[in-house]
Amino acid sequence: MTRLSLFPDGTTIENDSLTIAEHNLAALADTYGTPLYLYDRATMDSAVDAYRRCLAAQYPGPASVTYAGKAYLCTAIARWTQEHSLWLDCTGEAEIAIALAGGVPRQRILVHGVNKSPADVESAIRHAGTIVVDNQSELVRLSRHIPASASRFPGIWLRLQPGLAVGAHAYTQTGQRGSKFGLDREDLIAAALNCRRYSLPLEGLHFHLGSQFRDPSPLKPAIRLALELAAQIGFEGDWHFSPGGGWGVAYHEGELPHPDLERYVSLIVESVLQGCRAHGLSLPHLHLEPGRSLLARAGVAVYRVLTVKRLGDRTWLLVDGGLADNPRPALYAAKYTCLPVARPDREPGGRVYVAGPYCETGDVLIEDISMPEIAEGELIAVPVSGAYQLSMASNYNGARRPAVLWLEPDQARLIQRRETVTDLLQRDTE
Amino acid sequence: MTRLSLFPDGTTIENDSLTIAEHNLAALADTYGTPLYLYDRATMDSAVDAYRRCLAAQYPGPASVTYAGKAYLCTAIARWTQEHSLWLDCTGEAEIAIALAGGVPRQRILVHGVNKSPADVESAIRHAGTIVVDNQSELVRLSRHIPASASRFPGIWLRLQPGLAVGAHAYTQTGQRGSKFGLDREDLIAAALNCRRYSLPLEGLHFHLGSQFRDPSPLKPAIRLALELAAQIGFEGDWHFSPGGGWGVAYHEGELPHPDLERYVSLIVESVLQGCRAHGLSLPHLHLEPGRSLLARAGVAVYRVLTVKRLGDRTWLLVDGGLADNPRPALYAAKYTCLPVARPDREPGGRVYVAGPYCETGDVLIEDISMPEIAEGELIAVPVSGAYQLSMASNYNGARRPAVLWLEPDQARLIQRRETVTDLLQRDTE
Repeated sequence: MTRLSLFPDGTTIENDSLTIAEHNLAALADTYGTPLYLYDRATMDSAVDAYRRCLAAQYPGPASVTYAGKAYLCTAIARWTQEHSLWLDCTGEAEIAIALAGGVPRQRILVHGVNKSPADVESAIRHAGTIVVDNQSELVRLSRHIPASASRFPGIWLRLQPGLAVGAHAYTQTGQRGSKFGLDREDLIAAALNCRRYSLPLEGLHFHLGSQFRDPSPLKPAIRLALELAAQIGFEGDWHFSPGGGWGVAYHEGELPHPDLERYVSLIVESVLQGCRAHGLSLPHLHLEPGRSLLARAGVAVYRVLTVKRLGDRTWLLVDGGLADNPRPALYAAKYTCLPVARPDREPGGRVYVAGPYCETGDVLIEDISMPEIAEGELIAVPVSGAYQLSMASNYNGARRPAVLWLEPDQARLIQRRETVTDLLQRDTE
Repeated sequence: MTRLSLFPDGTTIENDSLTIAEHNLAALADTYGTPLYLYDRATMDSAVDAYRRCLAAQYPGPASVTYAGKAYLCTAIARWTQEHSLWLDCTGEAEIAIALAGGVPRQRILVHGVNKSPADVESAIRHAGTIVVDNQSELVRLSRHIPASASRFPGIWLRLQPGLAVGAHAYTQTGQRGSKFGLDREDLIAAALNCRRYSLPLEGLHFHLGSQFRDPSPLKPAIRLALELAAQIGFEGDWHFSPGGGWGVAYHEGELPHPDLERYVSLIVESVLQGCRAHGLSLPHLHLEPGRSLLARAGVAVYRVLTVKRLGDRTWLLVDGGLADNPRPALYAAKYTCLPVARPDREPGGRVYVAGPYCETGDVLIEDISMPEIAEGELIAVPVSGAYQLSMASNYNGARRPAVLWLEPDQARLIQRRETVTDLLQRDTE
């Protein structure tokens, strides 16, 4: 079954049920309720290993993998990043707080953000090893914080807007001309000079072209430009370079095979080696900052079909989650697939639409997909649900955010409890 | 200043500052921080009065206004609905719980939902006066709950899918053929028969065409169809009719004047009177269920400009909120406007883009708007922010949901406190 290959690595069918890391999904849903999010540790581990292997095989300099916390972050995930000594990319003080709760040490906390608040900046200076500076105003504000002894001040990277983009959906492009992110080449040079003037420890360069792309070639000219600017700035010795862009994953059968990680890393490494040679630069500490490609495929959303509804020429499977826990179909017209948890290998029964319970036409999870005949009360599992779903979740229509389980062969650990009605009333002061 | 007419009724400029209900917005922002949401009570009250006045002047039968809680609901708003004896439309058990916290009595709680969970159904039966049934499965499930004495069972309304739609954005259309909502005409008749069979107290009909529209004419054929079906079902005596569709508001100068409420109510009333005459139906208890047109214009979002960034040919005002508290620009390409809080009547300084701090290209609040020259640290106020913003808010990038104030001339009450970093860690179980 092709669709099964979208699920986490160790997904099997046992006792007629979808099974991940030896856990029967029907049993988990019975215990923890639905909607239920699952993260398969082995799939996350192997994604990290794949990045590390590719980098080690291809890049002769130092290299690190940074997990982009914005994809999904909670204390347990932060703690997991440290089992692999990953850096953790945090946006703002709240993500820094989660990183600290998960025991991430200062040197591995990297702070991004196009518009850091004073509280974000204070927290970053206090807790982070690296701050990626987006603009000149931020640099000026940072300079006001330089202590007499700058020994513990975070390293500064500058974010370049290369004027290029990758990816299909306008919202997932970040590096194009006209976006709000980064410094253009003139401003970047000026910012580098300002770092010197303010005695800020300028240590690296970053750019980000976009996310969920599968053709890495636009990275090439962006890396060329960045290294040309790095030479102009005069980086030497140990310096850091983070050519950003979130490598894609396959969300449905039509996107298989999964984008080839080796091809992505190769293109980056070749471009970096070539650019450094061309400009006489020392090899930088190379950073990749994946979010989606580390966690997306490890995550599975399990919903219960409460209603099967035939209306006009459509059959609707109405499940107990949707827009509130996964706004990606509404935000990006993202396409997903799913399988029934019980006997997923049943014969197809017809085409269905899968939608949530919310009073919103955009609350459709999957449009027009082939599925076996599904009865009310059955469970369905949506693969590739690990990234940019829970991190964007809302309480629309009084939805409570799902419970999240961490799956290892010998245990299923609750890492985030289900939100309650009481939680929803917590902020009401009268 | 035309833009000022998008703000709540009593908005003035006093001591060089935007002032609502005699409260200086700069002072409120200093006290409560930003992003800050404000609701002006007088504007909400006068919106209710306008509905009531139009209905009383035009409709000879009984009529009610129901507030659609999905637009924004917290305990204080639920309590406010009862100061006007409004019905409250709740989707699911969590919104019912908020209604109860706000003291809404059973007879004014109306429960909607295309896919009510068992918990939603139980809560509705226990606490609601009316359940709007979306589909046959729901009816069957409800029938299992009928007590021996059905005296306290909620009244049942059936939701018709009229196969028609209003409004511009596909996501805000709900009544069209192919949507997930309601029963088509054959199913509606069958469902009415089933109500009789199950001894469920069938009391009314509902349909919903969509929201944020300003041409009411598509309501006419939908009402005609609904009343034809009502006659077929044989409603008589006291029965309820709720022709749904959320009347629009102007979000920016290009949409002014505000859509004419009288025109909307007139068309509904005329169509109902005509249909009832044509089919010999008694005049129904007529329900209008506004959400947006009651609260949107009463709400104002106040942000602080942390960074003014010139990049390429664009000037960006980067503020401290955006996608996380207002996903409507990203979800619906919704357009907004804004004014500076200090000296809003300054001369225009040029065109700007207003964006938030989030790592997401879709996090742009306002594209290309004329504004005075704005300095970093200034406040801006975005009008028409009362509906479908906070109710869809997320914690993306660790954003904490804003504080919400309720403004009356003699007091500014905090009705929802700002979310904290601690709140964000509450659900992390390890």
